[in-house]
Amino acid sequence: MSTWLIDSLGTTDALAEVFSDASVIRAMVDFEIALARAAARAGAIPPGAADTIERAVDAGSLDARAIAREARRSGTPSVPLVQALIEQVRAVDPESASRVHWGATSQDVTDSALVLLLKRAHVLLACDHARIDRALRELSNAHAGSVMLGRTLLQPATPITFGLKAAGWKAAISRSWRRLSEAWGQALVVQFGGAAGTRAAVGESGAAVASALATELGLAPAAPWHTDRDRPGAVIAGCGLYAAALGKAARDISLLMQGEVGEVSEPGGGSSAMPQKRNPSGCAIAIAAATRLPGLVSAFLAGMIQEHERSVGGGHAEWPIVSTAVQATGASAAAMAGVVEGLEVHPERMRRNLEATYGTVFAERAVMMLALPLGREAANELVKRAVRQSRETGRAFGETLAAIPEASRAVPAQDLREVDRPGQYLGEAESLRKQLLEE
Amino acid sequence: MSTWLIDSLGTTDALAEVFSDASVIRAMVDFEIALARAAARAGAIPPGAADTIERAVDAGSLDARAIAREARRSGTPSVPLVQALIEQVRAVDPESASRVHWGATSQDVTDSALVLLLKRAHVLLACDHARIDRALRELSNAHAGSVMLGRTLLQPATPITFGLKAAGWKAAISRSWRRLSEAWGQALVVQFGGAAGTRAAVGESGAAVASALATELGLAPAAPWHTDRDRPGAVIAGCGLYAAALGKAARDISLLMQGEVGEVSEPGGGSSAMPQKRNPSGCAIAIAAATRLPGLVSAFLAGMIQEHERSVGGGHAEWPIVSTAVQATGASAAAMAGVVEGLEVHPERMRRNLEATYGTVFAERAVMMLALPLGREAANELVKRAVRQSRETGRAFGETLAAIPEASRAVPAQDLREVDRPGQYLGEAESLRKQLLEE
Amino acid sequence: MSTWLIDSLGTTDALAEVFSDASVIRAMVDFEIALARAAARAGAIPPGAADTIERAVDAGSLDARAIAREARRSGTPSVPLVQALIEQVRAVDPESASRVHWGATSQDVTDSALVLLLKRAHVLLACDHARIDRALRELSNAHAGSVMLGRTLLQPATPITFGLKAAGWKAAISRSWRRLSEAWGQALVVQFGGAAGTRAAVGESGAAVASALATELGLAPAAPWHTDRDRPGAVIAGCGLYAAALGKAARDISLLMQGEVGEVSEPGGGSSAMPQKRNPSGCAIAIAAATRLPGLVSAFLAGMIQEHERSVGGGHAEWPIVSTAVQATGASAAAMAGVVEGLEVHPERMRRNLEATYGTVFAERAVMMLALPLGREAANELVKRAVRQSRETGRAFGETLAAIPEASRAVPAQDLREVDRPGQYLGEAESLRKQLLEE
Amino acid sequence: MSTWLIDSLGTTDALAEVFSDASVIRAMVDFEIALARAAARAGAIPPGAADTIERAVDAGSLDARAIAREARRSGTPSVPLVQALIEQVRAVDPESASRVHWGATSQDVTDSALVLLLKRAHVLLACDHARIDRALRELSNAHAGSVMLGRTLLQPATPITFGLKAAGWKAAISRSWRRLSEAWGQALVVQFGGAAGTRAAVGESGAAVASALATELGLAPAAPWHTDRDRPGAVIAGCGLYAAALGKAARDISLLMQGEVGEVSEPGGGSSAMPQKRNPSGCAIAIAAATRLPGLVSAFLAGMIQEHERSVGGGHAEWPIVSTAVQATGASAAAMAGVVEGLEVHPERMRRNLEATYGTVFAERAVMMLALPLGREAANELVKRAVRQSRETGRAFGETLAAIPEASRAVPAQDLREVDRPGQYLGEAESLRKQLLEE
Repeated sequence: MSTWLIDSLGTTDALAEVFSDASVIRAMVDFEIALARAAARAGAIPPGAADTIERAVDAGSLDARAIAREARRSGTPSVPLVQALIEQVRAVDPESASRVHWGATSQDVTDSALVLLLKRAHVLLACDHARIDRALRELSNAHAGSVMLGRTLLQPATPITFGLKAAGWKAAISRSWRRLSEAWGQALVVQFGGAAGTRAAVGESGAAVASALATELGLAPAAPWHTDRDRPGAVIAGCGLYAAALGKAARDISLLMQGEVGEVSEPGGGSSAMPQKRNPSGCAIAIAAATRLPGLVSAFLAGMIQEHERSVGGGHAEWPIVSTAVQATGASAAAMAGVVEGLEVHPERMRRNLEATYGTVFAERAVMMLALPLGREAANELVKRAVRQSRETGRAFGETLAAIPEASRAVPAQDLREVDRPGQYLGEAESLRKQLLEE
Repeated sequence: MSTWLIDSLGTTDALAEVFSDASVIRAMVDFEIALARAAARAGAIPPGAADTIERAVDAGSLDARAIAREARRSGTPSVPLVQALIEQVRAVDPESASRVHWGATSQDVTDSALVLLLKRAHVLLACDHARIDRALRELSNAHAGSVMLGRTLLQPATPITFGLKAAGWKAAISRSWRRLSEAWGQALVVQFGGAAGTRAAVGESGAAVASALATELGLAPAAPWHTDRDRPGAVIAGCGLYAAALGKAARDISLLMQGEVGEVSEPGGGSSAMPQKRNPSGCAIAIAAATRLPGLVSAFLAGMIQEHERSVGGGHAEWPIVSTAVQATGASAAAMAGVVEGLEVHPERMRRNLEATYGTVFAERAVMMLALPLGREAANELVKRAVRQSRETGRAFGETLAAIPEASRAVPAQDLREVDRPGQYLGEAESLRKQLLEE
Repeated sequence: MSTWLIDSLGTTDALAEVFSDASVIRAMVDFEIALARAAARAGAIPPGAADTIERAVDAGSLDARAIAREARRSGTPSVPLVQALIEQVRAVDPESASRVHWGATSQDVTDSALVLLLKRAHVLLACDHARIDRALRELSNAHAGSVMLGRTLLQPATPITFGLKAAGWKAAISRSWRRLSEAWGQALVVQFGGAAGTRAAVGESGAAVASALATELGLAPAAPWHTDRDRPGAVIAGCGLYAAALGKAARDISLLMQGEVGEVSEPGGGSSAMPQKRNPSGCAIAIAAATRLPGLVSAFLAGMIQEHERSVGGGHAEWPIVSTAVQATGASAAAMAGVVEGLEVHPERMRRNLEATYGTVFAERAVMMLALPLGREAANELVKRAVRQSRETGRAFGETLAAIPEASRAVPAQDLREVDRPGQYLGEAESLRKQLLEE
Repeated sequence: MSTWLIDSLGTTDALAEVFSDASVIRAMVDFEIALARAAARAGAIPPGAADTIERAVDAGSLDARAIAREARRSGTPSVPLVQALIEQVRAVDPESASRVHWGATSQDVTDSALVLLLKRAHVLLACDHARIDRALRELSNAHAGSVMLGRTLLQPATPITFGLKAAGWKAAISRSWRRLSEAWGQALVVQFGGAAGTRAAVGESGAAVASALATELGLAPAAPWHTDRDRPGAVIAGCGLYAAALGKAARDISLLMQGEVGEVSEPGGGSSAMPQKRNPSGCAIAIAAATRLPGLVSAFLAGMIQEHERSVGGGHAEWPIVSTAVQATGASAAAMAGVVEGLEVHPERMRRNLEATYGTVFAERAVMMLALPLGREAANELVKRAVRQSRETGRAFGETLAAIPEASRAVPAQDLREVDRPGQYLGEAESLRKQLLEE
């Protein structure tokens, strides 16, 4: 178990509600009611029994903690829950009580309930993703011309624009969302197979009950998948990839927020002890999620090696993995939606950080200029010398280079002087930015 | 590093060749040649230079071990490899030497090379997958009528057919392959971004070079993705899901092969010390792969939180993860292709194992029969009594039940006697089998 | 979050209480009270302030859910909790309110609180471990003479005793517990460093406050370890190893419980649909834990790469990982304690399973006998022939072998006939058993 | 498989040699020779046979690739290797050939060989750890007085010293090494159990052979541990913790090396495209290792749930996991030894970065000063105002605060003016530093 405080950064209120005890019970009871209605529709049980069951069961009066305790004995919460429902129905009509859970097995209930919860969770994540998508597009457009340092291995590199950077985040996040969303859609299938997956207990009407049940629950029909867990597995793996894409953006933002860099600020984020601070609190939530997801994905994958028609342990491990993975991913999306919607960008500071390199980040460009007339090695040596001088003297790299006779003999001094103009060395930043936004 | 012996069960000869030193060097050199040709085609370097480069470079004479040693200093094998190529070209034509690696950055080489290797590996996996797919379909069809115990939590449950079981394996493996294959297709994109991902060093012709380069290499074009690793990430996650689906089948087969079960036999599999044994050696390879993949997937995901335009460490971790994950998955597919193609199935033993339960696995069925007239609880009690008696006496469960007066008063004795006929309690096994094969 | 139902199989009531909201709040409040008392003792704040704080704060009236919601803004539950405590104290005495959280930083509270919870959890796990340890020792002693099949790669191998098998489980579980317990002991250290880990805010009295605080809380003193997470990391890794050792025993037991094997039975474990079943429900909990732990260990390790004096994300991921890992491990221990204490062992069935191999598991022994006179290859061929005949005819392997003239010419027929007596081929089973129990 | 180039950053030359094919073969052959000698010493085989075996076998002539290919059939390289050795001995003396591998099972060879390799690897890691340990101690002592910004959540916090920071790295790395080293020592045990772990094939002399074998190999004796993998598991988990401690230091160093921070420089580290750059290449290797290890640890743990006396798959997964984990950890240690031995530290830049905050990092200190006279809330408000003014005006925080009348009425202006003197706000930095070094 992990409660509000233990996992405060790994969920949202709305997602916590989806996976709450009340909501889990509701989903399991919804399955049993839908099953009764479906069985009645298919003629497997009398219509009156379905009505009675629907009227008699009362999700609200069930005790989650007691069910959980019993679940440890039988290996599944279905056994005590179904027992409780049978008792509720028996109090009204003993005959109908025999029709509860008709032809189903424990895992039909737990799997279908989980799918129902996943369906609700998807909507919540989709909303936050849409916010991220929109905000990143706007950030990118607004800062198409905000020139900043590219940074490779955390070292200053040739310039990019913040618009390109934001477009890169957006593209990776959107691709990952599309993958996740597709997997999610494929996973919204009903589980109904009975004891060993043949629906034998419902006799002739198995297919009809299964189909009606899917309709009742608003899920797609499917052959039983008790020990074939690729569909939820693809959702969890997709969460891992999506959380990683969010985590990458969060890492970048937290780095840009460093006091010494100061190029963006996350909205909010105070400190308990230090009033001067503005912490990347939203990014921390996203990075925490990206830290947890890989392990959750691996645990789900490891549990997929399930024995025969029902596993010993593999399947028993899934509920908390799925619920934690989805909530942490959703917490990340919600946090990052807030971060990118409110992100303050400081183009002036970007410019100053670039200038603070004295233009030495254009060394690559200078090598490209000088390599043809002088050969690559000589060009390299010359440029390194200019970099050194520029750093020692604080004089602009272009000026420094132009003042070296070997250089100005090979390339017009005017060209050398302008080697460190960022605006002239952005390559395809703008067209790539647009391409990434359109993807 | 892991050599032939250390990883003998985690690769195949063909896949080991794809990721061998010679093959990696070849792919990196192919990138450099293709880049020169593309740059020439786009007018960025003289056509003659491209020709010279292509003629002068000699992948075969490069020393992988020396490059690897140098790579530790610069953080990438690209630096020493490019240096070696420049020297090869310089020996022929110093001016052309300046055009080697024109406008590219180290990661352009390593990423594109990795994608080239992935492209080759995909073909190898596809072949083995096709073998598995075909063999499982045939097994399923051949054993549509081979009735066997369903088994839940490793306990005997109501009967299924081996045809249904094999169809279930096939469906999960095929769904997983489709996902993996789609991700793989999307990952076959070129990497070309230059120092900070703007292609600034090639000036105006960046897009033209990038496009020509993709064509030369037979890859799709893409905006630079130096620190956006979702595409290869989706491949690795897809390998994890696919290996898990194979691992589930392998686990089932190894369980069915147990001496006490004996329902199938893997071809081959001798023991060093015990001549009587026939080991599930192919299954062991598949389960070993399914054991390793989750950790590899998690490592890749963890490494995706990459800083800015080039990461410190995250990207540096990828090559061995990708190569190991793909090889282990391929080893699993190759092993399982052999296993299912040669699998011996023993329907007679399946029947005997079913009979050895005295029909008590039909207890569920008996409860369903008796629940209506007697109520669920009473039915349950009666059935438990019959199960106990049947086990103690070795008398058939149906007979035992029919001999209990409370039971035969509620349901005709003849129906009770036939409660343990497997053929009459297969539900939709056959139609579900067909549905799974058609998916 | 994961609630009672979502994680019913991954905790116990007692462990769930340790990590409940009420308990977390209590631990954080205990830290603040202890800090005030320690600061007063060290002369850093007036004694009266400590008394007032202790009297004024009321853990019971704090709203965990509201604190959790605020925590998302500041990145830690400490900020809103401390704020709430300050308000409680201010209502009584504004001056003392200024002394709450004196010199501490948010992470001092959260880390110390986590350690306090770990301390309580350790006692709970130790009790269940002691039960397992005792029960396995008794099982091993009781079945020192219960001969059974050894099984390698799930195939019948030469015989062992159940006493040896149980001793093997016990030895691995005990070694793992000792490692875990040692790591746990080392992790019970206080956290007190202030904003950047120098305790600067408490001036001269830092060391005195830290030492008194440790004493108040019953923890060992330590230099601040805000971003050095090896101590809790070793606990989580130790949980992973311990849960794996339990999982191995659970896997074995679930395999021995198979209908076709039937050598042991777990107490309890009914099925919702099938009254004849006796499920390995306790084993399922242990295997589920062993499935989840590796991913949790990897997530903790991945989060250990924490930046400078306080991390962005790595540390924020820890609480739910630690709490889930400890609870799942504890659930496994509790379940396995129940399993091994109540395990029914069926030596008669073990004997029958051994006999059902017709003695062919002694093929290795026969090869050893025949290899010297005949050479290894000829011996192998002869033995394989006898195995085949024995399986076809159902005649005992020893008899079969003795009837082959090449064999009885090389080795006295009487020796060959006795080659399949299990009691004579147990090697050092008994002395190894004792050695494993004494370890 | 992963070859030189694929895994160039994840090994060292010396470790790659330890796990090379030649070395693995050597270790397996050493086991067989030692076994023959031990069996002869114990009287289980004639002394002459041992001599013949030792003389006849020729590790150098074995073909690793061919053995690997065969291993896929039998599930282990032992079967083809032993077969090859038997043939080598048979060519000399057929009778002695029957004594090769006497009483052993395949896993006795592979496990003992792995332990022999681990023993060699430990020495290599210990050397690099000693270098790290020494260099960090020296760095810490040399920079006991180098005041720098503490940084929490990547934001400037109150000051620390670089000496304290280095001591923190050293303490965590050393604690982790001690744990790892202890686990490593416990894992250096021989494996010798025969087919099912009872040593039955060697009859009476099992214990004597086992003991002599351990002595021959320089390993500790142990009861067979074929499916009890906690000892190597503890080594791999220990590698994970150790690599994480190294990774934390590497992350810090790479952050301090950022262009905008510039407080330390790693020796070496050039770029292929950008001559001005100095990359954290060593840190990249360490962070890459810390990225990979968690997944490797989880894979090993997942594989520990091994069936009965020999597993299907779990054990088959181990060799590449262990070899990769140890090599990556060793590569990290080697890289970080180079980094910290050659680290350039720039105290002047540290001072400038601190000054660039205008003293606002002392806000906490100011709050502590003002909280008593004014109450915490008012103090907080005042300090926030001063921080704002200081940032806008560029005037020192102390001066700014002293100029606010509410503040200077509450606390002497002189004290306020000195609030931003770093040297006066280091708390116990120096004593904690010493304590951490002495641990």
